[in-house]
Amino acid sequence: MRFGVALFPSKQLQDWVNSYRKRYDPHYALIAPHLTLVNAFETTEEEAETLARKLRDAAQQHEPFKIRTSKISSFHPVNNVIYLKVEPDDKITDLHKELNDIIDSTGQTYKFVPHITVGQKLSDDEHFDVYGTLKMQGIEHEEEIDRFHFLYQLDNGQWTVYETFRLGKEAE
Amino acid sequence: MRFGVALFPSKQLQDWVNSYRKRYDPHYALIAPHLTLVNAFETTEEEAETLARKLRDAAQQHEPFKIRTSKISSFHPVNNVIYLKVEPDDKITDLHKELNDIIDSTGQTYKFVPHITVGQKLSDDEHFDVYGTLKMQGIEHEEEIDRFHFLYQLDNGQWTVYETFRLGKEAE
Repeated sequence: MRFGVALFPSKQLQDWVNSYRKRYDPHYALIAPHLTLVNAFETTEEEAETLARKLRDAAQQHEPFKIRTSKISSFHPVNNVIYLKVEPDDKITDLHKELNDIIDSTGQTYKFVPHITVGQKLSDDEHFDVYGTLKMQGIEHEEEIDRFHFLYQLDNGQWTVYETFRLGKEAE
Repeated sequence: MRFGVALFPSKQLQDWVNSYRKRYDPHYALIAPHLTLVNAFETTEEEAETLARKLRDAAQQHEPFKIRTSKISSFHPVNNVIYLKVEPDDKITDLHKELNDIIDSTGQTYKFVPHITVGQKLSDDEHFDVYGTLKMQGIEHEEEIDRFHFLYQLDNGQWTVYETFRLGKEAE
């Protein structure tokens, strides 16, 4: 089975991102707006149960943290993904590192750029048009993240949450 | 915000149900196949946090249980919902009752019939056709349920998981 780890921002931010994803992201119906912490990887259900325990322990070692978004950016020319940039800071970078060390996945081939995808799989022309329009918009926004989610993918591509983990000691 | 409580069956069962939902359920893209424990209700985010604590306590008071599916059934003529019937037993009925007592929602107007929706919002003719075909199929299946999910709905109708709760004492 295919698993991944992500965090979902507030409903307010998800609704804002969905207003664009609806038109520009073919994964719109497969998962709610999210920030990927561990890229999709293959494992067995038995192994997932072991990983879930490790992820729960890790969650308790990290305190809730704030994320701050500012501008719309793009991974072009690496790929035509338009995203809402989340300002990197030590807390999210440390969490990302620890979770990826636990999963020990080879899927993390790029440097971690915390982001929430707004559009993807666009042709070069579409990308140019959409990015030209969106990069003016951005959203100055700050909110607290107090949990992350371990998910798995169904055969149709949809993601289902396996378990949520609250950050911090008081979550116990 | 609109919240609800549901459980997701195994990936195997979700994939089977989705093979039909794809054609017969307009909610296909909004949520993965699920069994509703508390119907959608309105509450504030602050109140949801209080409810989450109560749901977590309730989860610890209920042990994991088995669900058994057998046949495809329909709520017609009440409404044209075709569903995979989950055999009712004390464990799921008790959990349903306690969760609804916690939420104290007036949404629960029907007797609890544990089910996983396969098709809905069908015209009478469609319902007659589809039900005629599917009621022969059914799926004899048994599996263990060890968690349930507290969810909220985005403006576009999609559901996002707020938190998962594992059943039983050892979940602590």
